[in-house]
Amino acid sequence: MEINHNTRIVIVGTGLIGGSYAQGLTEAGFEVGGVDKKEENLRYCLERGWLAHGETDPTPDYLSQFDIIILALYPQRVYEWILAHMDALKPGALLTDTAGVKGTIVASIQASLRPDLEFVGAHPMAGRERGGMEYAGAAIFKGANFIVTPTEKNTPAGIEQAEAIGRALGFKQIVTLSPAEHDEMIAFLSQMTHCVAVALMTCKECDGFEKYSGDSFRDLTRIAKIDEKMWPNLFALNKEELVAQMDLFEAQFRRMRDYILNDEKDKLREMMVLSTQRREKFDR
Amino acid sequence: MEINHNTRIVIVGTGLIGGSYAQGLTEAGFEVGGVDKKEENLRYCLERGWLAHGETDPTPDYLSQFDIIILALYPQRVYEWILAHMDALKPGALLTDTAGVKGTIVASIQASLRPDLEFVGAHPMAGRERGGMEYAGAAIFKGANFIVTPTEKNTPAGIEQAEAIGRALGFKQIVTLSPAEHDEMIAFLSQMTHCVAVALMTCKECDGFEKYSGDSFRDLTRIAKIDEKMWPNLFALNKEELVAQMDLFEAQFRRMRDYILNDEKDKLREMMVLSTQRREKFDR
Repeated sequence: MEINHNTRIVIVGTGLIGGSYAQGLTEAGFEVGGVDKKEENLRYCLERGWLAHGETDPTPDYLSQFDIIILALYPQRVYEWILAHMDALKPGALLTDTAGVKGTIVASIQASLRPDLEFVGAHPMAGRERGGMEYAGAAIFKGANFIVTPTEKNTPAGIEQAEAIGRALGFKQIVTLSPAEHDEMIAFLSQMTHCVAVALMTCKECDGFEKYSGDSFRDLTRIAKIDEKMWPNLFALNKEELVAQMDLFEAQFRRMRDYILNDEKDKLREMMVLSTQRREKFDR
Repeated sequence: MEINHNTRIVIVGTGLIGGSYAQGLTEAGFEVGGVDKKEENLRYCLERGWLAHGETDPTPDYLSQFDIIILALYPQRVYEWILAHMDALKPGALLTDTAGVKGTIVASIQASLRPDLEFVGAHPMAGRERGGMEYAGAAIFKGANFIVTPTEKNTPAGIEQAEAIGRALGFKQIVTLSPAEHDEMIAFLSQMTHCVAVALMTCKECDGFEKYSGDSFRDLTRIAKIDEKMWPNLFALNKEELVAQMDLFEAQFRRMRDYILNDEKDKLREMMVLSTQRREKFDR
């Protein structure tokens, strides 16, 4: 099954990410429906023309019309929603999500899903420091990566549909990883960096330090403004991987501390040469 | 003694920071001389009109004409240079520096200085990831902080002169700290953040990860491109303070890791609320 402009799409959860999907997919020419318990989120999207219609408490009839169901809920709610509503979905429909962790979620959904439905995990690597509709808009996807996490339970057609959504939204790059590879990568590149920023910001009283701060501390703590409702749950869903990455970082940080304490300047220089060389690849 | 356009200034070390001072002070209307062993640095500044004249191996006569001597050398060389050349300096001259550590340097210089000279430490909190003249220019000071670190050996007139240089260079804010307060602040805000970035960039093989990286990892590792000739020396000069700050950070990072491992979400939420609240003060 191809994705074309007759493909009917519904977004479940029309907050920051879901609302941004709604704008992007509507502007790409799709008819997009919305489901959200919060009426104000739906209203925000409807007023802007990002949704064609929406429901706070969708009937089975409403849900049964869609070919693609995008779950833009907090990760721990994705599985619950699918279990509660899958009986209503159209045979052959594709389900996908936007969650920042994959291993546990993808496996449990695929194990429980109605056999004539298909779930392909996806993670749009874009966001803002804080949730909230005022930051929503398809512009947040420009230049960002879209990760698709298929498993052996997925079909080429299902994977192609999930990737087509990323392309329609204007992501810079669509990449594929297994759920386990995704979770290791995210633990290292995203979750652990948030832990580093929060630990920097809270490890000592620093009232008034903003007067003395150059760019370094500001850059390293930008993401220390963090949504305390979302992140502890994301961490919990990827706990083993995250703790493993934190331990790797801490061991290297401690090594550096010991080099400093013991005046091992050559060892420090080696680390800095490697660091400089590796970082160059991350320049855009 | 006031600083005015008859005040003759020499910059010793006309690399990235010294060259930027040269441009800024010349454009502020001063006649600025330069001293640098590297002729190419002097030539770079002379060709651009940032210096009126310069010497690679200055005679006592050359040095004796200046009212203000600005040492923009690697920190460990500031004390050596002053010891080697102070006999030639004009009675009543003011010496100042640009070094990123203060405690040991300021104390040893002030203890050895000719009694008719005065040294006031200063730290322009601006720079680039890498040294090198191609990044020089007074523009790097716009919006940045200039820290002056007087001691009980300084006079109000000397402190005023050191501050006047920061104002002439266009720094956003001139602030005063004791050398010890400065070093604690710098250990925390600058040196430790560089350690964090280098440890993140080197704690595991991450070839290819640039494809999956969002902004968080890029922000936290921007300063992982680091001058391996300068930083190990800066760390060594501020070792006790830096290791103390690293230990504070590591303890908090480990606390966070344990909260994650033990599912203490409420504790994580508390840290995140504090982190978010504190970080807001650092927004510009």
